[in-house]
Amino acid sequence: MKLWAPPTWHTAFARALFFTAFALSLSQALPAHSSLPFIWPLPAAFTFGNETLSVDPALSLAGNAASSAILRAAFDRYRGIVFKHSDRYGFLRTLRTSYDVAKLQINVHSHSDELQLGVDESYSLFVSSAELHSGVVTIEANTVFGALRGLETFSQLCTFDYTSKTVQINKAPWSIRDKPRFAYRGLMLDTSRHYLPIDAIKQIIESMSYAKLNVLHWHIIDEQSFPLEVPSYPNLWKGSYSKWERYTVEDAYEIVNFSKMRGINVMAEVDVPGHGASWGVGYPSLWPSPSCKEPLDVSKNFTFDVLSGILSDMRKIFPFELFHLGGDEVNTDCWSNTSQVNSWLSKNRLTPKEAYEYFVLKAQQIALSKKWSPVNWEETFNTFPAKLHPQTVVHNWLGPGVCPKAVAKGFRCIFSNQGVWYLDHLDVPWEEVYTAEPLEGIRKASEQKLVLGGEVCMWGETVDTSDVQQTIWPRAAAAAERLWSSRDHTTRT
Amino acid sequence: MKLWAPPTWHTAFARALFFTAFALSLSQALPAHSSLPFIWPLPAAFTFGNETLSVDPALSLAGNAASSAILRAAFDRYRGIVFKHSDRYGFLRTLRTSYDVAKLQINVHSHSDELQLGVDESYSLFVSSAELHSGVVTIEANTVFGALRGLETFSQLCTFDYTSKTVQINKAPWSIRDKPRFAYRGLMLDTSRHYLPIDAIKQIIESMSYAKLNVLHWHIIDEQSFPLEVPSYPNLWKGSYSKWERYTVEDAYEIVNFSKMRGINVMAEVDVPGHGASWGVGYPSLWPSPSCKEPLDVSKNFTFDVLSGILSDMRKIFPFELFHLGGDEVNTDCWSNTSQVNSWLSKNRLTPKEAYEYFVLKAQQIALSKKWSPVNWEETFNTFPAKLHPQTVVHNWLGPGVCPKAVAKGFRCIFSNQGVWYLDHLDVPWEEVYTAEPLEGIRKASEQKLVLGGEVCMWGETVDTSDVQQTIWPRAAAAAERLWSSRDHTTRT
Repeated sequence: MKLWAPPTWHTAFARALFFTAFALSLSQALPAHSSLPFIWPLPAAFTFGNETLSVDPALSLAGNAASSAILRAAFDRYRGIVFKHSDRYGFLRTLRTSYDVAKLQINVHSHSDELQLGVDESYSLFVSSAELHSGVVTIEANTVFGALRGLETFSQLCTFDYTSKTVQINKAPWSIRDKPRFAYRGLMLDTSRHYLPIDAIKQIIESMSYAKLNVLHWHIIDEQSFPLEVPSYPNLWKGSYSKWERYTVEDAYEIVNFSKMRGINVMAEVDVPGHGASWGVGYPSLWPSPSCKEPLDVSKNFTFDVLSGILSDMRKIFPFELFHLGGDEVNTDCWSNTSQVNSWLSKNRLTPKEAYEYFVLKAQQIALSKKWSPVNWEETFNTFPAKLHPQTVVHNWLGPGVCPKAVAKGFRCIFSNQGVWYLDHLDVPWEEVYTAEPLEGIRKASEQKLVLGGEVCMWGETVDTSDVQQTIWPRAAAAAERLWSSRDHTTRT
Repeated sequence: MKLWAPPTWHTAFARALFFTAFALSLSQALPAHSSLPFIWPLPAAFTFGNETLSVDPALSLAGNAASSAILRAAFDRYRGIVFKHSDRYGFLRTLRTSYDVAKLQINVHSHSDELQLGVDESYSLFVSSAELHSGVVTIEANTVFGALRGLETFSQLCTFDYTSKTVQINKAPWSIRDKPRFAYRGLMLDTSRHYLPIDAIKQIIESMSYAKLNVLHWHIIDEQSFPLEVPSYPNLWKGSYSKWERYTVEDAYEIVNFSKMRGINVMAEVDVPGHGASWGVGYPSLWPSPSCKEPLDVSKNFTFDVLSGILSDMRKIFPFELFHLGGDEVNTDCWSNTSQVNSWLSKNRLTPKEAYEYFVLKAQQIALSKKWSPVNWEETFNTFPAKLHPQTVVHNWLGPGVCPKAVAKGFRCIFSNQGVWYLDHLDVPWEEVYTAEPLEGIRKASEQKLVLGGEVCMWGETVDTSDVQQTIWPRAAAAAERLWSSRDHTTRT
């Protein structure tokens, strides 16, 4: 298997972490499965032989993929990954004059570049026997995003052989028919507890594509800092850690575009009302009082004006149909203990708990009015399940057993049980990440369909640019295989 | 100051580590020197004003530098670093139509791309006042390598302003006249204890250029693994950790070329005879016996044939005039305790210590015959100073006080006192790295000249790809300023 990757060595680090660390874990922990190929996550169906083919460093792109900007860019990227040992000085050319594989033919049935939840990511990949002398590896897919997944798999079939100094495909011929088990395969990044530069975020997005993850859940803002520019309320990013630890609107566009080029959606989060203390740095009236800063002041129209302004500005940036509204860990003491808010509660005959419900539902209406489906952390479902909008996606985190309850009531659900899928829990070994099952306790096919998938969460309190990748990988790759590969393949028998 | 850097985000990580970690250390540890600019290492001489200039994202290269491939590539690289917040979507173009700085004029007096020890790295950098409306920043240098140092300084003057969304030069006008204090400013990497992929090595080389370090000392081989391809003795890299953890000849060329493009020499090391156990994996007769594997068998001609073959092959790759022959930590017990070697010692009337001297001097002759100046770790000097070839460079490591002795005897010296400049000593704080002085105890100007400079050493036992950069920086930057900036500037008074 290939250990390291691309000539543009931005990816080298992530790819090294991804492949070596995990391969080492596997080789130490599991009996040798010589029958399993080194493809991660394991494809849905595959057959292979025992031939070795050489791949031409001048590998060219054929098929109708060349008319897709996304696929042209991806082909160039993956050619760089496969031919890391490029022949810049012409030494290698003297070693060999003909190759078994000279063309990668990619055919897609649709050139639409609309990327949404549930987009068809299936693909087929065929490497014929050397005897047939076709010289062509073929990827077929319904969409450009399926073809991207096929390209990743192709890159994992290719290995640099240090003896012949040739890139080789081992175990040919190959026939792979692949598709993901879940539509939502996420990684959460938290840029409030520690700021991450956009280049570090891009590096993480690139590494997600190696594991075929397809949603970046961007927990942009929290009580510690407000790094995002919001043109409608330009003082909000005064809540950033410094005037350099910020994301411009253009930076955010760049993250979304960079993700899309890799078939990854970006789900933004604005966590209200419990995690909003940083909002008040720019607009102090959003705090119940300067000494009691969150939850956001439920009593003021201004609070919802600002929320609406943020979502309006963000709607232009984030085209994904899901938007995360948080709703977790709401301690209402600041509302009860601040006379002005407390008066408002009394006047409106609301208990603090009812005011929490009022805030969450009002936020949901704002998101829905902007054609977003709201996602909320599970406390909202645990507290007032009957009141949540039916389009709500319940995001599990507190423990097991929540998705079964949510789907039984007809809600969609995302699995992120903190005991196994919170990456800041450093004591959780990869085996426990791997064996966590999003459909645990859900038997009915109709209810299983409501589980969109799952997400590993990289909370930012204890990681920064220097160690975030090392904390994400290799364990995120364990969850990625759980979410992509068939349940049979990922369950020990 | 700029915290993060380039659009090609390979460098982001290193640059983030380099600038933020160190800036934070400084701001916590030192009183505020508002009179000092944020340029690291501090230039030899500079003046500045209090104006702010805007820099055109379409900044163009003028002057005669465009005829140098090294400078054209460097200009593109640094433009990427400065304009990380590039205007890919055209939003920013609407904000401003004219800029104060539209051209970077680089003039070099020589276009020679010969990079050797002592190459002229001086440069001048001028940013005129906005009133003068020249629109030009000027770098003048005697060599392309001086111009590279000027480009690094230029990039450090540029800051992205999040409010105006413009790259700015603060404190203009600037006049900087700069040159290094020492000719040799090194970082040692050890790829034997942990293999580092070439992409990781390139990332480190790139980060060295931010600190104006100019020698990569590549400790390629040691007793733990032999990752390098040696065409003359093709079994040697059987001593690599795995068949993937290897460097081809082409990889090594690539490292040398990548370094040269950044004005960095590569000094390779073959550490004989004490650290050669891995050689015998491919050629067991290099071991005194299979149960006693090092020092390399001094009694066989084959040992010196292999050494000569290695150096012949490496000479084609490494053009730098210095070559490191190791010579440290030689425990001769294996020679005394192996009957065949012991017989040879008796026959030749050599004590084990004399055989150590015999081996080192024979290795020096091989290197000298290939027009290399030999570098040896200090044990060789400590043991038989009178016998070393006068061209020998003594590489200090065991403690303070060695360079004064070496230069007193007319040898050149490199300072790497392990108590302060061994980066694997994690308990050494940056202040102690910073205050280490290579000329300590050397008064005569003629002897001071023999101190080529110094080197921080990143031994590989406890670091791998996942943390090597984090261990190198920010402390290597402390040594880098010590080696570049004037002694007055780097000494507290």
